[in-house]
Amino acid sequence: MAKMIETDMMKQNGMTPGTTVQTTLGTYLFDCLKQEGLTDIFGIPGDYNFTLLDELERYAGLRFINGRNELNAGYAADAYARLKGMSALITTFGVGEMSACNAIAGATSEHIPIIHIVGAPPSMAQQEHKLMHHTLMDGNYDVFRKVYEPITAYTAVLTPENAQMEIPAAIAMAKQKRKPVYLVVATDLVMKPVTLRSVPMAPQPSTAQPALQAAMEHTMQLLGKAQRAVLLVDVKTSRYHLQEPVRKLAEALNLPVAATVFGKGAFDEGHKQFIGIYAGAFGSPSIRSIVENADCVIAVGLVWADSNTANFTAKLNPANTIEIQPDQVKIGEAEYPKVMAEDLLMALQNSGYRQQADVVPGPFPYDQAKGSPDEPLKAEAYYPRFQQMLKEDDIIVAETGTFFYGLSQIRLPRGAAYIAQGGWQSIGYATPAAFGASVAEPARRVLLFTGDGSLQLTAQEISSMMSHGCKPIIFVLNNYGYTIEKYLNVKTEHQKYNQVPNWSYTKLAEAFGGEAFTAFVRSNAQLDEAIRQAESECRNKLCIIEMSAADPMDAPEYMRNMRNYMEQQEKQQGMQQKQQQS
Amino acid sequence: MAKMIETDMMKQNGMTPGTTVQTTLGTYLFDCLKQEGLTDIFGIPGDYNFTLLDELERYAGLRFINGRNELNAGYAADAYARLKGMSALITTFGVGEMSACNAIAGATSEHIPIIHIVGAPPSMAQQEHKLMHHTLMDGNYDVFRKVYEPITAYTAVLTPENAQMEIPAAIAMAKQKRKPVYLVVATDLVMKPVTLRSVPMAPQPSTAQPALQAAMEHTMQLLGKAQRAVLLVDVKTSRYHLQEPVRKLAEALNLPVAATVFGKGAFDEGHKQFIGIYAGAFGSPSIRSIVENADCVIAVGLVWADSNTANFTAKLNPANTIEIQPDQVKIGEAEYPKVMAEDLLMALQNSGYRQQADVVPGPFPYDQAKGSPDEPLKAEAYYPRFQQMLKEDDIIVAETGTFFYGLSQIRLPRGAAYIAQGGWQSIGYATPAAFGASVAEPARRVLLFTGDGSLQLTAQEISSMMSHGCKPIIFVLNNYGYTIEKYLNVKTEHQKYNQVPNWSYTKLAEAFGGEAFTAFVRSNAQLDEAIRQAESECRNKLCIIEMSAADPMDAPEYMRNMRNYMEQQEKQQGMQQKQQQS
Repeated sequence: MAKMIETDMMKQNGMTPGTTVQTTLGTYLFDCLKQEGLTDIFGIPGDYNFTLLDELERYAGLRFINGRNELNAGYAADAYARLKGMSALITTFGVGEMSACNAIAGATSEHIPIIHIVGAPPSMAQQEHKLMHHTLMDGNYDVFRKVYEPITAYTAVLTPENAQMEIPAAIAMAKQKRKPVYLVVATDLVMKPVTLRSVPMAPQPSTAQPALQAAMEHTMQLLGKAQRAVLLVDVKTSRYHLQEPVRKLAEALNLPVAATVFGKGAFDEGHKQFIGIYAGAFGSPSIRSIVENADCVIAVGLVWADSNTANFTAKLNPANTIEIQPDQVKIGEAEYPKVMAEDLLMALQNSGYRQQADVVPGPFPYDQAKGSPDEPLKAEAYYPRFQQMLKEDDIIVAETGTFFYGLSQIRLPRGAAYIAQGGWQSIGYATPAAFGASVAEPARRVLLFTGDGSLQLTAQEISSMMSHGCKPIIFVLNNYGYTIEKYLNVKTEHQKYNQVPNWSYTKLAEAFGGEAFTAFVRSNAQLDEAIRQAESECRNKLCIIEMSAADPMDAPEYMRNMRNYMEQQEKQQGMQQKQQQS
Repeated sequence: MAKMIETDMMKQNGMTPGTTVQTTLGTYLFDCLKQEGLTDIFGIPGDYNFTLLDELERYAGLRFINGRNELNAGYAADAYARLKGMSALITTFGVGEMSACNAIAGATSEHIPIIHIVGAPPSMAQQEHKLMHHTLMDGNYDVFRKVYEPITAYTAVLTPENAQMEIPAAIAMAKQKRKPVYLVVATDLVMKPVTLRSVPMAPQPSTAQPALQAAMEHTMQLLGKAQRAVLLVDVKTSRYHLQEPVRKLAEALNLPVAATVFGKGAFDEGHKQFIGIYAGAFGSPSIRSIVENADCVIAVGLVWADSNTANFTAKLNPANTIEIQPDQVKIGEAEYPKVMAEDLLMALQNSGYRQQADVVPGPFPYDQAKGSPDEPLKAEAYYPRFQQMLKEDDIIVAETGTFFYGLSQIRLPRGAAYIAQGGWQSIGYATPAAFGASVAEPARRVLLFTGDGSLQLTAQEISSMMSHGCKPIIFVLNNYGYTIEKYLNVKTEHQKYNQVPNWSYTKLAEAFGGEAFTAFVRSNAQLDEAIRQAESECRNKLCIIEMSAADPMDAPEYMRNMRNYMEQQEKQQGMQQKQQQS
């Protein structure tokens, strides 16, 4: 990629390698980002990034999208990258970048490539170790890069001399590792011309043919005798853009397809081979039975995390499992490194295997409408309503909390995108993420599902959405506290620390100076009516529907199962301790 | 300190050193914090800190104060520590702690001791490198401690075996360095009994008598022949609790006292020897003349930063300057390490030197009322009004931005506390800081001065204040954008990125579910009336006064001076570049 830019620029300028053309560092950076398909860059201004932002305002083809604070801008960039493949974030030195640590660490955890660009104090001040504002007042200008080193895939201090190496290298690393990278540049260097030279790019990892062949032979030994094989789709499928080859594989092999909680949305849930979400002891017993009794599981992009496996109650038999990871495959106890997923999926697709029995999908947990019109809002009644309202190509953003678990069981329509932090689970993420999603895909409908506790962390991004003309439908489940936290604490009851102030969520729009459709609902009928209105109003304005829960401890079945499991665990531990003491 | 706790606990339990008593790690931690005078701990719940918070709810003498997000809770803890000497913050692993990086780095920059305590996943999960939620999904449980290492004075992973060493060591380090420290503890270890043993505390730094003697001799050579000596008070004076010895020194030596911008509030501004703020080319010319023409400057706790020296336009003659730092003194070109400030200040106080001329304080920049009642709000008119309304013992919290510079020139009444981030300058700090100040000092009046751009970053802490019964008077200067940033960018005009959405700030209280006195004012008369009402209403409720600026670029004189200086610099650089090119 770097090579191409160089060639283009040099052609335009009639230059030969090794010479300097008048392309500034800033312009070169933005050229590289535009080439990756970005049309927007998120961030917050600060005096050390003025030269970057001034250059960006003059630059054609990239818009600056300012959030209300850096954490939120980082979250927005995260969601944007999930939809457009990559994103960029500009913050200022110290105060700005230190506010974005959670968003960037989260992107590392969740495999989201964000190019985080930091504007730093003038190079002369740095060289003289002057005490400048936004520093630790110790003359050390490398300290914040060191903070970012453990939570990113790559960091670099940009100069006009190294920009043409470091920027492409950082972008390549972000793409290869599917993780954020960190670039910092002194404010005075942004307008300096970059030195262009011919830099060979590091080779991308590729498949070793003997390894692929061996893996395929091993795979066919398992698959050849299988009669109840299942395809299990997890999160790295979408992170590594494997959705298409996975779909083709499923169709060629005629396999039933389940997804994990993290992997939700990676396989088209409207597809006739999609059977549901596999979530160990907390999810659907029938899906669990199908997956755990399969005689062969082809698992793509697995992340074996507690929140993805229902506290490790999910159990796959290693002997029957073909675990396809982005750059290796594990079959039984054998590992085959240097096998790229695309190549293995293609080989499998052409293997000739085809399962006899046709897949019988459904029923799905929320297929059945429940709850009479006047009944107060309950999870068992509103999730079917949400499933009912979803349309093709919708973008669903689910906040960590009760919605995360409840929505994991919803059946998504064709083409829908599903955005949630399955592993990082930072409450507050979803509201700015809905902002980022709305910016990334202005023509698609964005539905945000959040709770009172979570929304309060990052509520100001509703303002950003209104000021940038975004028109999501926002469902705020007001269950008067951190209900998810109350579920997760099985040792004590009525914790004061799990209380949150009771806001008037529908009044936020006006306080934030914007116009919105708002509704406050308590019953099924009110929710139905609010959804009906919002579906029409959302063409013109942002919509906020506050759902007041009659019972703060009402929750989807998934969470009740989780709670029961944890209470049993707690009881067992208590008994073990008693036995040890006696 | 550790020793005393140990002794107390052992006495109560009839134990001898080396034995284990049933004091849990959590209780021991809270004992140590209570002993430092803390009555409150800030934070946000998360499942990995439940055991800490459950223990805290049961613990007598410490309250848990939950903020709306971790960054804000960190800012609140920062302000609390400025008033009470130290503070504590509890966050959860990964998602929680990573949101607080800015607050903790800021506390390092500003010399604020915060004990940051993180609840981590169960030790067994850590040892088995399980993939748990809130991690980077790589089995690495030391990564976030590594993030905090460069931005804190000390980090430790607590266990029942080391708690009795590490907790006192961390607290001692926080006190000695006046910086935050980081402690992380696995959730299952909080309720485990700590192992008690006799641990010698590291010796505290103390004065080397020969160094003190030499420094005093050198000081008296300078001071002995001085006739226009000045005492200059900077920020480390308050951070190291040197206000009292500095006041006594000023009185014994009969010196005029100026403070720096960072040092504002460290010397009683109602004192008859206080002459004003010294801020190089941007502040009062008469103060500049007195300080820069002094034949001896005794400077206490200097931090020679750009934002403290009016972009380094402040100039002290090193040959005339006695620079007293917390643990060393510099006189002319000579440095005397191992001289503790308290000892040198005491020796100086008893030196017998006394300046002949009596100090003639004032006039101060805002002594004169300005602006007719119907005039639209302008800086030159509202700063005198603020000075007029201040009362003894008020706590003034000034946001980074136009208020930071304008309020630096206000004359504080006796006993007033002044809270601002002079060096770190993170916008958004002040609102949560007002929350922390209100919790720390419920009997004192808290005045928050913030701007529209800054408030939007952390506005939800108004909700925390209302829900905790805090009743500050909040002035929101709505100048329709980041005015400070517009002033600091002298290269371009009308930057789009410096625009912010126009909120209805007075409506925030209702949206946040609280009751407040609110006023929207445009003229001097309206401001006067709003202040009059707020002074009465603030006994019962939080007050928000939105000040709508007629001219978004209206600003205090300090900022206009700064802008002029930067424009001149820019012009000179442009001329130099032209000369180089020709």
